[in-house]
Amino acid sequence: MKKITSESEYREELSARGRLPEGFSTGLTELEFIPEELDNDVKMPMNLSLLLLERPTDSFAGVFTRNKFPGAPVLLCRSRLESGLFRGIIINNKIANVCTETGLGDAETVVSAAASAIGCEAEELMAASTGVIGWRLPAGEITSAVPALLTAAEADCSRNALGLADHIMTTDSYPKLRSRNLAGGTITAVAKGAGMIEPNMATMLCFIMTDLDVPREILREMLPRVVASSFNRITVDSDQSTSDMVIAASSKRVECTDYIDFEAALSEICQELAGDIVRNGEGTAHVIKVRVDGAESSLQAAAVGKALANSPLVKTAIAGNDPNVGRFVSSIGDYCGNNDIDIDARRTEIRLGGELIFSGGSLVLDPAKEVRLSAYLKECRMDPVHKGFPLHEKSVEIDINIAMGESHATILGSDLTHEYVRENADYRS
Amino acid sequence: MKKITSESEYREELSARGRLPEGFSTGLTELEFIPEELDNDVKMPMNLSLLLLERPTDSFAGVFTRNKFPGAPVLLCRSRLESGLFRGIIINNKIANVCTETGLGDAETVVSAAASAIGCEAEELMAASTGVIGWRLPAGEITSAVPALLTAAEADCSRNALGLADHIMTTDSYPKLRSRNLAGGTITAVAKGAGMIEPNMATMLCFIMTDLDVPREILREMLPRVVASSFNRITVDSDQSTSDMVIAASSKRVECTDYIDFEAALSEICQELAGDIVRNGEGTAHVIKVRVDGAESSLQAAAVGKALANSPLVKTAIAGNDPNVGRFVSSIGDYCGNNDIDIDARRTEIRLGGELIFSGGSLVLDPAKEVRLSAYLKECRMDPVHKGFPLHEKSVEIDINIAMGESHATILGSDLTHEYVRENADYRS
Repeated sequence: MKKITSESEYREELSARGRLPEGFSTGLTELEFIPEELDNDVKMPMNLSLLLLERPTDSFAGVFTRNKFPGAPVLLCRSRLESGLFRGIIINNKIANVCTETGLGDAETVVSAAASAIGCEAEELMAASTGVIGWRLPAGEITSAVPALLTAAEADCSRNALGLADHIMTTDSYPKLRSRNLAGGTITAVAKGAGMIEPNMATMLCFIMTDLDVPREILREMLPRVVASSFNRITVDSDQSTSDMVIAASSKRVECTDYIDFEAALSEICQELAGDIVRNGEGTAHVIKVRVDGAESSLQAAAVGKALANSPLVKTAIAGNDPNVGRFVSSIGDYCGNNDIDIDARRTEIRLGGELIFSGGSLVLDPAKEVRLSAYLKECRMDPVHKGFPLHEKSVEIDINIAMGESHATILGSDLTHEYVRENADYRS
Repeated sequence: MKKITSESEYREELSARGRLPEGFSTGLTELEFIPEELDNDVKMPMNLSLLLLERPTDSFAGVFTRNKFPGAPVLLCRSRLESGLFRGIIINNKIANVCTETGLGDAETVVSAAASAIGCEAEELMAASTGVIGWRLPAGEITSAVPALLTAAEADCSRNALGLADHIMTTDSYPKLRSRNLAGGTITAVAKGAGMIEPNMATMLCFIMTDLDVPREILREMLPRVVASSFNRITVDSDQSTSDMVIAASSKRVECTDYIDFEAALSEICQELAGDIVRNGEGTAHVIKVRVDGAESSLQAAAVGKALANSPLVKTAIAGNDPNVGRFVSSIGDYCGNNDIDIDARRTEIRLGGELIFSGGSLVLDPAKEVRLSAYLKECRMDPVHKGFPLHEKSVEIDINIAMGESHATILGSDLTHEYVRENADYRS
């Protein structure tokens, strides 16, 4: 992405890359509701979005949170994977529809109402929700807003996914949209998520649209691999929410001649969106990119990388622009020791910003190098109070070679700043 | 422990419980050194401590960090477990002797010099170090201080472990000492540690002394069990340092008739010390005590408890006195889902401060309960800027029943406050 210096430039950039693939439309509307759980009668606004295919497709796939206490929309969407056809998905923010007694029924009510209005089977529609955990979904108010939603979808002539990317946000400070043109077709994806941040707020959602004709079986084989190397390789605060989902669908309008190219493009898009989410993580001042080489498996490489990226001591050191690399070494040794990974300190090498900092079992530091590394960390810093666009896409690069095998993985994480604590601790205190 | 309201009261309390078991003495001295790694010639102070048995004993045991990049003292002490006899341990702060090329040789130099002065074999002495990672141990300066250390040990007539507990501190804000009288004998233990906190500072150290005659084999079977249910059940910031160690030795002066009673007393002491360490954790305003029941194994129970206690979202919510229990649920579901633990949300129950907050797959909250829970969190709060004594020993009690089996475990953790970030991020920025 070119250098962005203002929110309007960022939106122009997103709009330019945001063309909807053939056969897709979006509808956006708003509604108001009064949460049952509160003692007052203050109305809250809710965004309602519809991602719709002109014709039902059999080529769709989904990957969902592995959280054992999943939200009702996750349960509903999982069951929809068995359906023969997919027509679209209805998405609300403000309430995640998780951990309530009536959750699944409420989601079914919304989907049935939307299906009647569209004129399709309820089994062809999915639902996604993001927001407060434990509050009841206002199914009645959402159902009442369905006609307006469909009217909006029919009237939309922008043919652009930026509106959808905007409308599904909760605590995100800017929309997330990435795309690729490929062999006469398009892949466009939007995502939301900035860590599990506000009290009870949750959820990473990603919707991938394409007109390239990738058969259902191939898409369903491909999507878990793509997610494994993108969204499952990021960690803002090490928590996986109850509601995370990635949905992909093809309108099959354009012949796809090379599925390997398609998967490569899809992987790039998802890795870029994953980077957007980390960059927008609450209180994030540094994006940390940990590449682990020389592992026995890519899972092992990812686990070692996550151990480093999730260490509060590493995260706070980087937040303070402090090249306190003893903490890097300790976090790796801690993880390996407690997970029976037979790493040899004498063969392990660690680099920060390309500079060797650990080799032969010892730290290799000198005062001049410390000054250089601190300057490097400052250069990678963003303003942790996010504006409406990402300031840059630099990250703190940590490269680790554990010299045990041939596999590698890259993890994206974020530092741990006062702003993170402020967002997460000071909300109701 | 009775209610403590001042540092002098706390020290009186520790002194009263601090009697050294028969056959032990301590020596304390100070020295100055100039770190090789710095560009200037500013002298730094270092505390040197000796824990000495009057006669060598064959009854001693050690449990060490599982970190794969252990410090030189850990390597030296591990090798000493093979020795027939143990006479004592020499302990320094300021430098951890980790990740330097000459580390093991430097530790051997110190131990050999001390052995000559004492008149014992070098194999009968251990070494422990805590402080900066990556800096070279000033073996020459320490060796020069050995005569003063021995003189101090011989001259010490306090017969009290409080001086040792004071002398081994680094960033601890108060000494940690616990003891039990049992069947005519004594068990007294001191510990240091407050998380891996200052840049490159590390290490939890614990030294257990007893005059009760527990045979070597029994002590060595017992100590790992005791550590597993105490020090291995705490988590300040989820990092296990390169230097953690627990050493136990018996002078065998008093007959021990019941090893089960002995182990129970030792477990209590170690659990109390573990609590002292968490309570003194950098920036800790709330100690979090998570009890998990109904697990298939105690390891599983401990893992679920640690997942909750290490969740940054749970830790920040508690820091803010915010009973944001959706985060509790999410962190448990996340851990179980990603570790193939087949938990059933509908059978899981969660309590906070004794109040039921999750049951039958749903949160059970109402506005009045939220107010009560927030008041409860405030009541458990300490001042995160530690004084020279612990303000109280209250903890935030979270009880989870996962209804899968009969096993349980209790984890002690700490919240995540601005003070934690300040200590760990702002040191050199």
